[in-house]
Amino acid sequence: MTDFTFQISARDGAARTGQIMTAHGPAATPAFMPVGTAATVKGMTAPDVAATGAQIVLGNTYHLMLRPSAERIDRLGGLHKFMNWPGPILTDSGGYQVMSLSKLRTLTERGVMFQSHIDGASYHLTPERAVEIQHLLDSDITMVLDECPAYGGDKDAVARSLDLTLAWAQRCKDAFVKRPGYALFGIVQGGVFDDLRQRSAESLIGIDFPGYAVGGLAVGEGQEIMFRVLESSVPHLPADRPRYLMGVGTPDDILGAVTRGIDMFDCVMPTRSGRTGKGFTRRGEINIRNARHAEDPRPIDENCACLACTGYSRAYLNHLFKAEEMLGAMLLTRHNVTYYQDHMRDIRAAIAAGRLADFAAETRAEWSKGDIPPI
Amino acid sequence: MTDFTFQISARDGAARTGQIMTAHGPAATPAFMPVGTAATVKGMTAPDVAATGAQIVLGNTYHLMLRPSAERIDRLGGLHKFMNWPGPILTDSGGYQVMSLSKLRTLTERGVMFQSHIDGASYHLTPERAVEIQHLLDSDITMVLDECPAYGGDKDAVARSLDLTLAWAQRCKDAFVKRPGYALFGIVQGGVFDDLRQRSAESLIGIDFPGYAVGGLAVGEGQEIMFRVLESSVPHLPADRPRYLMGVGTPDDILGAVTRGIDMFDCVMPTRSGRTGKGFTRRGEINIRNARHAEDPRPIDENCACLACTGYSRAYLNHLFKAEEMLGAMLLTRHNVTYYQDHMRDIRAAIAAGRLADFAAETRAEWSKGDIPPI
Repeated sequence: MTDFTFQISARDGAARTGQIMTAHGPAATPAFMPVGTAATVKGMTAPDVAATGAQIVLGNTYHLMLRPSAERIDRLGGLHKFMNWPGPILTDSGGYQVMSLSKLRTLTERGVMFQSHIDGASYHLTPERAVEIQHLLDSDITMVLDECPAYGGDKDAVARSLDLTLAWAQRCKDAFVKRPGYALFGIVQGGVFDDLRQRSAESLIGIDFPGYAVGGLAVGEGQEIMFRVLESSVPHLPADRPRYLMGVGTPDDILGAVTRGIDMFDCVMPTRSGRTGKGFTRRGEINIRNARHAEDPRPIDENCACLACTGYSRAYLNHLFKAEEMLGAMLLTRHNVTYYQDHMRDIRAAIAAGRLADFAAETRAEWSKGDIPPI
Repeated sequence: MTDFTFQISARDGAARTGQIMTAHGPAATPAFMPVGTAATVKGMTAPDVAATGAQIVLGNTYHLMLRPSAERIDRLGGLHKFMNWPGPILTDSGGYQVMSLSKLRTLTERGVMFQSHIDGASYHLTPERAVEIQHLLDSDITMVLDECPAYGGDKDAVARSLDLTLAWAQRCKDAFVKRPGYALFGIVQGGVFDDLRQRSAESLIGIDFPGYAVGGLAVGEGQEIMFRVLESSVPHLPADRPRYLMGVGTPDDILGAVTRGIDMFDCVMPTRSGRTGKGFTRRGEINIRNARHAEDPRPIDENCACLACTGYSRAYLNHLFKAEEMLGAMLLTRHNVTYYQDHMRDIRAAIAAGRLADFAAETRAEWSKGDIPPI
């Protein structure tokens, strides 16, 4: 079996394009990972996810540990088999959702006690258990358990949180069972404080991970601060390791983050938007529920090759959303995930051609034109 | 363009197998039409419906006239284009749903006034308007507007209702615009009264339709009475015209009705069951929510080639339903529609081989075994 590797084939400024190789195959970078929270990218079959061009998906440790449980997924042959996704899978550590979803949390140096948001059952998530769960899931890329401080916390609190996160990172590394093609990523924290971000990055490098995530962003700080934090974090990360910006973001966020040296992304935006009627296009975002689409025979995006755009009109999608037919969410989700993957493909090509800045300017100019005029 | 035709290639007792040919292509009979109420077979894309083997689908005039309206669908190029279904479409007349769904109905000889169940808007559905709507939808097979008396009505009431239905059938025939490959079907009514059924069939034959439906069944009378009514209706219908049993039914209902000379069926059962967790298998029905499936690595039905059965386990589907993930309904719907189409394919083959009775006995024996034993 192959080792976990990261190969860079071209650079353009701080941006890079290349490939990660895992036990379950490759993923071209910069990569966008559709989110498969409960072992399903919501509203899509696994072959349909693959047909969008996605090569790697994300699973949520928190959701899966509660239901159906990591042990059950292990007995059923692992998460790849369970969700019919033969390609690479990255799982988060569960820390973020414990903080945002669970009830009655108690955080100690040892870990976090919490009650399930589903049935109130008690769980103890420690760094060692988070790594064990991800091992049971057979995740190709395991994330360390971190504490993600709420945006707006004071610097002392963020610094104390960072100390805990760094201690947990070492414990995760100690607990991680090395296997060819499998990797454990560290997570840079430190809120919006440049010196804390730098200390976090340097401490993680001291522990030594095959990849590094930037966490604690996209939590309300806004794009400007997010980009500034990237500029203060990424230069301290090793050039030869993949960098993953967790939970980000809009197509424009991704463009800006790639320009600042990020290689991997995940976000619920394309799937969640697909369920609520928001569609991404090369001319910006549309709300398919809007009455202007009710008799529009044109596709969501004339440059998109997905089934929603080749087989169906805006008028049809508008009808499906008004009639609350699940096919509306299914088709718009498929379109949005395809749009994101097309965006990543175009970004990779632009980096390879050494024209990322021009591509970014052209893409933003198209977005800013707004939707095609009504017929 | 070809004419609407019905060709019988083999007979076995009262059962027949063959093909109807429409303006939008053929459908092998006996045929099961998945129901696409609001211009979508719920939870399935049109290519996925085709992949099950379905060749003809049903659309509901009542739902489509209210939303998005027949005129809008016409302006958008017709129902085939709107819902991305290039094959044959049969539409009902709207009469049944007006009676079961709408508010403040007023029935006169002229037609029926009603208020939309969606927004209370008033509509007038006459025989002429029902035919016009189905023309605007570009339906290959138009159904006459009929009155479907509630099960349990007294004979005088059913007879009066039948008189109205027969008068409307003539008006529908007069209003129908003949086009190559398009057909108008009459509907036999008469409740559970053999002599009324016979009078209905004979009167419709006097009007002369290219196909005949048996309506007013599967409304609570039970399988025994339904089969008896078929035995009193079908022999009075011309042997060379397709016969359509509306709104039926279970796989066993279909088997019994084919044996009694029926060629076409529609029912929401495979799709509705798919959304509520009921799955059809060669060993009878299962409830995928049942705890016995929670760790079962086997497919719903090992003899099924659909994506739900080739890509996913019962355990996964059980998980999806418990987690209320829409992929659960999507996959089980796809399986159920595939099961129904496999059932029709096997029925056609059995008729062609002259062994329908044996096939029915074998199939019922398998169903009666019940689900495969737990592991």
